[in-house]
Amino acid sequence: MPANLPTVTSSPSAATGAKRGRPGYDQQSVLRVAVDVFNKHGYEATSMGILAETLGISKSAIYHHVPSKEELLRLALEEALGGLETVLTLDGATSGAADARLEYVLRGTIAVLVERLPFVTLLLRLRGNTAMEREALARRRAFDRTITALVSAAQQDGTLRTDIAPGTVTRLLFGTINSIVEWYKPGGPLTSQKLADDVISMAFAGLRK
Amino acid sequence: MPANLPTVTSSPSAATGAKRGRPGYDQQSVLRVAVDVFNKHGYEATSMGILAETLGISKSAIYHHVPSKEELLRLALEEALGGLETVLTLDGATSGAADARLEYVLRGTIAVLVERLPFVTLLLRLRGNTAMEREALARRRAFDRTITALVSAAQQDGTLRTDIAPGTVTRLLFGTINSIVEWYKPGGPLTSQKLADDVISMAFAGLRK
Repeated sequence: MPANLPTVTSSPSAATGAKRGRPGYDQQSVLRVAVDVFNKHGYEATSMGILAETLGISKSAIYHHVPSKEELLRLALEEALGGLETVLTLDGATSGAADARLEYVLRGTIAVLVERLPFVTLLLRLRGNTAMEREALARRRAFDRTITALVSAAQQDGTLRTDIAPGTVTRLLFGTINSIVEWYKPGGPLTSQKLADDVISMAFAGLRK
Repeated sequence: MPANLPTVTSSPSAATGAKRGRPGYDQQSVLRVAVDVFNKHGYEATSMGILAETLGISKSAIYHHVPSKEELLRLALEEALGGLETVLTLDGATSGAADARLEYVLRGTIAVLVERLPFVTLLLRLRGNTAMEREALARRRAFDRTITALVSAAQQDGTLRTDIAPGTVTRLLFGTINSIVEWYKPGGPLTSQKLADDVISMAFAGLRK
């Protein structure tokens, strides 16, 4: 299993923790492993039994940390959506010219995506099969609408081209940004700062010299 | 099932076709329905039994049209990859300035994507679980390398900005283009021609006025 397992004391002498989940795991580390497994096999195809096996603990030990698989999904989606929604509340997103606010929000989105890569990956792969998934997708759409409103405002200000519909601009921008989860390797030669610069340069100024 | 079923004579008097698949289906229409089901439920999760049920014919009737589920996948991927690879062989892709060839190939890619939407969707969702899937992904990577070479040539010609690595440009361009399968509705108000214009305008000239 290539899931990113946290370092876990597997010594059988660590008996004190046996009743309350194995030492080395807390809710956050269980969540992190669960999200990797969800991303690899799909949320629906992953049972609590598979999670327990991957974690090397019993199902009841998982239930010590979280009441259900659904709660793991809820926590994971909150990491992604909460991070993205926070960007919209920051000064750079709420004051200044519309085009500068748009750039600020896009840079913030890329930062959240890179910092919370597995969580955002899970969010982007949701198909809306349950009420919770549909609620998450509705929050994602609300986020997108905020971007579309910023694009529209910047077009009215005369700073952005007006021949592309604001909704199309948003879809193309998020097509570019969301695809980053499919190929970006944090810690590699391309820093998240340069990645954000590249996305903003291509989107705002274009590839042509 | 919201799969795009072809019009099928369901009259029980249509007995002549019973032995050789039901009238109204040929290999191409079986393939089309199969690809919709693969895209909805995942290739691996789809059995020949599920396909037969969706088509309203027996499994043996499917086997009259195709020898295996794997062959359906192979045919579907050929529709997508064959279409994309053909673009690279056309005059506009092989002669002229590198930036013009790049634009030509990107427009051709968008056209194939829109015309063969379910097939390209299937290709883009592959995870490389079988030898055939890995072979398809290798052909996709070869296609991407051709684009990277064109970007690199255009940078050397001085027509494209040089501060973004050619490989990153390709990833961002295909992030934008591939995401079209997630939201584009053929036959809607946004024509495929205008969509291609919008993608090319944003990527080459940028959003800023």
